[in-house]
Amino acid sequence: MTLIRRLLTAARILALGVLFTLGTGVRAQADPLPSWNEGPAKQAILSFVQATTDPASPTFVPPSERIATFDQDGTLWVSHPVYTQMMYSLERVPALVEANPALAQEEPFKTVMRFLAGDRAAIATLDEKDLAKIAAATLTGMSVEAFNADVKRWISAARDPRWKRPYTELTYLPMQEVLRFLRSSGYQTYIVTGGGQDFVRAYSDGTYGIPPAQVVGSAGATKYGYAKDGEPVLIKEPKLLLHDDGPGKPEAIHLMIGRRPRAAFGNSGGDAQMLEYTKAGEGARLSMIVLHDDARREYAYGPAQGLPATKIGTFPQALYDQAKKQGWVVVSMKDDWKTIFSFE
Amino acid sequence: MTLIRRLLTAARILALGVLFTLGTGVRAQADPLPSWNEGPAKQAILSFVQATTDPASPTFVPPSERIATFDQDGTLWVSHPVYTQMMYSLERVPALVEANPALAQEEPFKTVMRFLAGDRAAIATLDEKDLAKIAAATLTGMSVEAFNADVKRWISAARDPRWKRPYTELTYLPMQEVLRFLRSSGYQTYIVTGGGQDFVRAYSDGTYGIPPAQVVGSAGATKYGYAKDGEPVLIKEPKLLLHDDGPGKPEAIHLMIGRRPRAAFGNSGGDAQMLEYTKAGEGARLSMIVLHDDARREYAYGPAQGLPATKIGTFPQALYDQAKKQGWVVVSMKDDWKTIFSFE
Repeated sequence: MTLIRRLLTAARILALGVLFTLGTGVRAQADPLPSWNEGPAKQAILSFVQATTDPASPTFVPPSERIATFDQDGTLWVSHPVYTQMMYSLERVPALVEANPALAQEEPFKTVMRFLAGDRAAIATLDEKDLAKIAAATLTGMSVEAFNADVKRWISAARDPRWKRPYTELTYLPMQEVLRFLRSSGYQTYIVTGGGQDFVRAYSDGTYGIPPAQVVGSAGATKYGYAKDGEPVLIKEPKLLLHDDGPGKPEAIHLMIGRRPRAAFGNSGGDAQMLEYTKAGEGARLSMIVLHDDARREYAYGPAQGLPATKIGTFPQALYDQAKKQGWVVVSMKDDWKTIFSFE
Repeated sequence: MTLIRRLLTAARILALGVLFTLGTGVRAQADPLPSWNEGPAKQAILSFVQATTDPASPTFVPPSERIATFDQDGTLWVSHPVYTQMMYSLERVPALVEANPALAQEEPFKTVMRFLAGDRAAIATLDEKDLAKIAAATLTGMSVEAFNADVKRWISAARDPRWKRPYTELTYLPMQEVLRFLRSSGYQTYIVTGGGQDFVRAYSDGTYGIPPAQVVGSAGATKYGYAKDGEPVLIKEPKLLLHDDGPGKPEAIHLMIGRRPRAAFGNSGGDAQMLEYTKAGEGARLSMIVLHDDARREYAYGPAQGLPATKIGTFPQALYDQAKKQGWVVVSMKDDWKTIFSFE
């Protein structure tokens, strides 16, 4: 082994030598965040990475402790006017009603059938509790593999009604750049979503470069048992195990990751505790919150700055005030993002 | 970037060239498992890694799907006659009794005080339910940081009564070699323990090279709140969230990792479902179970092969039969391990 090691070491030194020789000049040119306009938001990200990865920095963080967490809906991709996962659940309802016609007269299924028949406004009357009820009714009893395959099938076929593109193309390019920049700086990037953990895991790797084990979400219990052929199987149960929203986010982060994040990104009241908990840690910490204030290129919503209220994914004035008070960075989609989607 | 990339690619090709040129001859000499005697157990590990990492193999597994899970107590380190974590919990009881003297007359605390006073046999009457009760009573109300610091303090000071060494030195060298060999082969190694997740996370990185996020264990709930100074804090609650034992192991693996393991290692009935679930996956899978049959160098226990029964960590005959039937590899500590501890 010694000879191999020596030669490998020599080759690595050569590779590093090449990098360092050219690095200084090139690094200044290579912008890791080309879709961001110059400004305090972009600068906050660059400064945070410098402060935590430069070995000479007093707030240097060892690679094993570099954890960054990202809300998904409204932070990494479009979630307005309806969460993507809600669309998936809604579209499973007809099969359910066919199997049990009495459901057609029960709420929230009655409203869902009206919505799917073309009454788009009907959806506004549904809230997160309805989603949970629909999700439980439509998903319970499936094996985890069958669910994963079904989500993969659906998400590759479904199209967003406004952009007529797969939902997985509606991720924000500036945030994809942040994910890649943090990873290339030694950070482990996690999704921490109020959405369903198993749902997001079906496409997170291909869409964000985030493997299933780094997706923390709301999660139902599963039950270990045996299929008819005797093969062991995990069946999805209607019991909610993790409600990964609000205070549930830092609680789930502790359960699933076991370390307080160094950086966290969100966009709504459900992210407040994650952002607060992250920012309250010692050393350099970054908490960022995305303000949807671009009615032309995406949407403008949330009471902050006089934007219209919505039923889900709100950004209330109190959150804006908390951000200012606790030193979180507010990202204006209108002002801070040069490009929003990669297909623009 | 293009020039850097080209030069880096050239340097990488050089490094790989060195590796491949010398690899064939040297690889045969370098034994990744020097503490294992030659035999079917060692061969099974080598064959499994070859079958899943050689790109020419029909059962090749992409790196992102290389997941290996290890039970801890009795699989990675000594757990006989008392789990290390039970020792930690027991030693917290006097402080509890001092704060609430009535407990001295209540079980299981009464037995614990007798045990700590020198009646070593008293411990045999305690079972896992008692441990859970003691753990809940001794740990509830601490912040997760305070608990982590307390475990770190305890485990660096505590000594095993037989070997007079820190518990963290009582890991099995052959299993440490398997951990390192799998990681150097692109596997992510996880601990999947019936023990407390927060307990094991306090020392897993230093002891096994396994970071907190890759420790799956029995876990209590935490509650997000605020300390007196207004700082956000996560407090340990008495509510059990995950019972990571038996069928709870594949269930927790799904929750925390989201992928079926390719290899799993255990030693008791509590590992049966994890081993069965792992082995039932398609392609090359490795399920191994450690038989404690070395009374001289460690311990011999469990009804299999006529060894004495114990109250915890048993290896019943039924498990041995299941191993044979389902093609798990049984590791004999006596025959398969040349060395058990690194300090031998």
